[in-house]
Amino acid sequence: MDNFSDRLFEAVEAKRSQVVVGLDPAYDLLPPVLREKHEALDYRNELECAAGAYRDLLFNLLPRVAEHAVAVKPQLAYFEALGAVGYELYEQVVDAALQLGLMVIADAKRGDIGSTAEAYARAHFEVAGADALTVNPWFGTDGLVPFLERTRGGKGVFVLVKTSNPSSKEIQDLHVAGGTPLYMRVAELTAEWGERSRGELGYSAVGAVAGGTHAQQLAELRQALPHTPLLVPGYGAQGAGPEEVAGAFDAEGLGAVVNSSRRILYAYREHDTDWLDAATEEVIAMKRALWSASGRG
Amino acid sequence: MDNFSDRLFEAVEAKRSQVVVGLDPAYDLLPPVLREKHEALDYRNELECAAGAYRDLLFNLLPRVAEHAVAVKPQLAYFEALGAVGYELYEQVVDAALQLGLMVIADAKRGDIGSTAEAYARAHFEVAGADALTVNPWFGTDGLVPFLERTRGGKGVFVLVKTSNPSSKEIQDLHVAGGTPLYMRVAELTAEWGERSRGELGYSAVGAVAGGTHAQQLAELRQALPHTPLLVPGYGAQGAGPEEVAGAFDAEGLGAVVNSSRRILYAYREHDTDWLDAATEEVIAMKRALWSASGRG
Repeated sequence: MDNFSDRLFEAVEAKRSQVVVGLDPAYDLLPPVLREKHEALDYRNELECAAGAYRDLLFNLLPRVAEHAVAVKPQLAYFEALGAVGYELYEQVVDAALQLGLMVIADAKRGDIGSTAEAYARAHFEVAGADALTVNPWFGTDGLVPFLERTRGGKGVFVLVKTSNPSSKEIQDLHVAGGTPLYMRVAELTAEWGERSRGELGYSAVGAVAGGTHAQQLAELRQALPHTPLLVPGYGAQGAGPEEVAGAFDAEGLGAVVNSSRRILYAYREHDTDWLDAATEEVIAMKRALWSASGRG
Repeated sequence: MDNFSDRLFEAVEAKRSQVVVGLDPAYDLLPPVLREKHEALDYRNELECAAGAYRDLLFNLLPRVAEHAVAVKPQLAYFEALGAVGYELYEQVVDAALQLGLMVIADAKRGDIGSTAEAYARAHFEVAGADALTVNPWFGTDGLVPFLERTRGGKGVFVLVKTSNPSSKEIQDLHVAGGTPLYMRVAELTAEWGERSRGELGYSAVGAVAGGTHAQQLAELRQALPHTPLLVPGYGAQGAGPEEVAGAFDAEGLGAVVNSSRRILYAYREHDTDWLDAATEEVIAMKRALWSASGRG
């Protein structure tokens, strides 16, 4: 199988899109029409009712966004919050997305000692079938080896270098020896972890998560990591717009993909149209804004 | 509900045990008799066969260890590695352990931005019903708030302060401002996160994971964190013994619980007896060794 970053950026070129649609189903935010429909059905319990509504949301959304987004990013937490029935839905959503030609980045942020990380890698790459996985760097190299090894089979890894939340500064911005902020040290490690999985377009299969809410740090990371693909969360509901994330792209407009979750899934809240049209319009608008911000417009 | 640390250390006193049995089911390590039995049964696929064998292992083991261990620690990775059927088994195992009077520490090592962490907290505390959860500190305070809030309802949190794997030094041991190793800074934060959830025995419901494979750092952490319960992994298969973990206990022999997983589950490899007797003997031997190492013997 081709290198993950080649596959990712070939999809960017083919679809003229750097959009990743985050799949964060949350019951209270669902379009009321979906909640009412499923609450009127005969489920065994609330978790199964929510799973039915999420399935309805996502299986309707995926075909509509498949031509405009390069990837989807299911957020495991929202599936786990429904227990086993939610976990089953996660697996079904991965299958459906892959069949529609969408890449799948499982946003699981897993990290553990090596033997346990091996089980997580199997879970998300082989059993669920995701193309890429977000991972937490806290354990260091030996905890990441099982994920890194999968890059040889065409899989991708995104290391949490600098996250989009305000408190990320408490640990990630601490200065370590030499006066470097810790996230920069993790960025250097991420580049090292990716050295052996570079694709034909010059990018590694080991990427970095770098929050769009920190525009300056994002641009610094793009400079410091010329071979590392960036996955940029924080667009939309968390506050980042096209200007904030522009620094994530390289001179050719490659090198990054940008995620939006709630702004797309729950676009009905700011549109007068049907929820599915609203979500689709939001993806198309985001696609155009990013394409332009990356200098391709 | 009582404070988590009070419940934990009351169980230690009642059972005269500081043992946590790690539930890390791995197909290749299962007693051959279990594999043969389930491979002869008519399952739909390999994942369901493995889940059947794991269920057999764990549902036989739990009643045998319930009087000798204070808690079990299901390692989520090994359940996720079987997909939805594995996740369902995780939930069943939590239920079974609770019914047997065992506390449950879900070893999920989750961490994310606040809104997502809320979903993880709901998943493991409310839906699965675990008593405590291991969490990753990388996101800082706002990513931990949903977990910390659950301490008011009797739940516990264990922050990954210093993990048991060799590469943990790459990030956790980096020196930050003032020359402090990062894990010590995270230890200080952990103490702060726990200030508002201290129980009657003097310990907080916010604990720290501190690897038994780093004996000196473990003793330092016990000194630096007088109100923080320690969850010590790394005993047994990872190399730590009673001497290495002795420093984790306070002067009364409280303050810590110690986990062993593979050494217990797969004790048949080093015993001549049946796998269940071997596992039970191993728990009893560990219980005695720890009780003595903690100065209670």
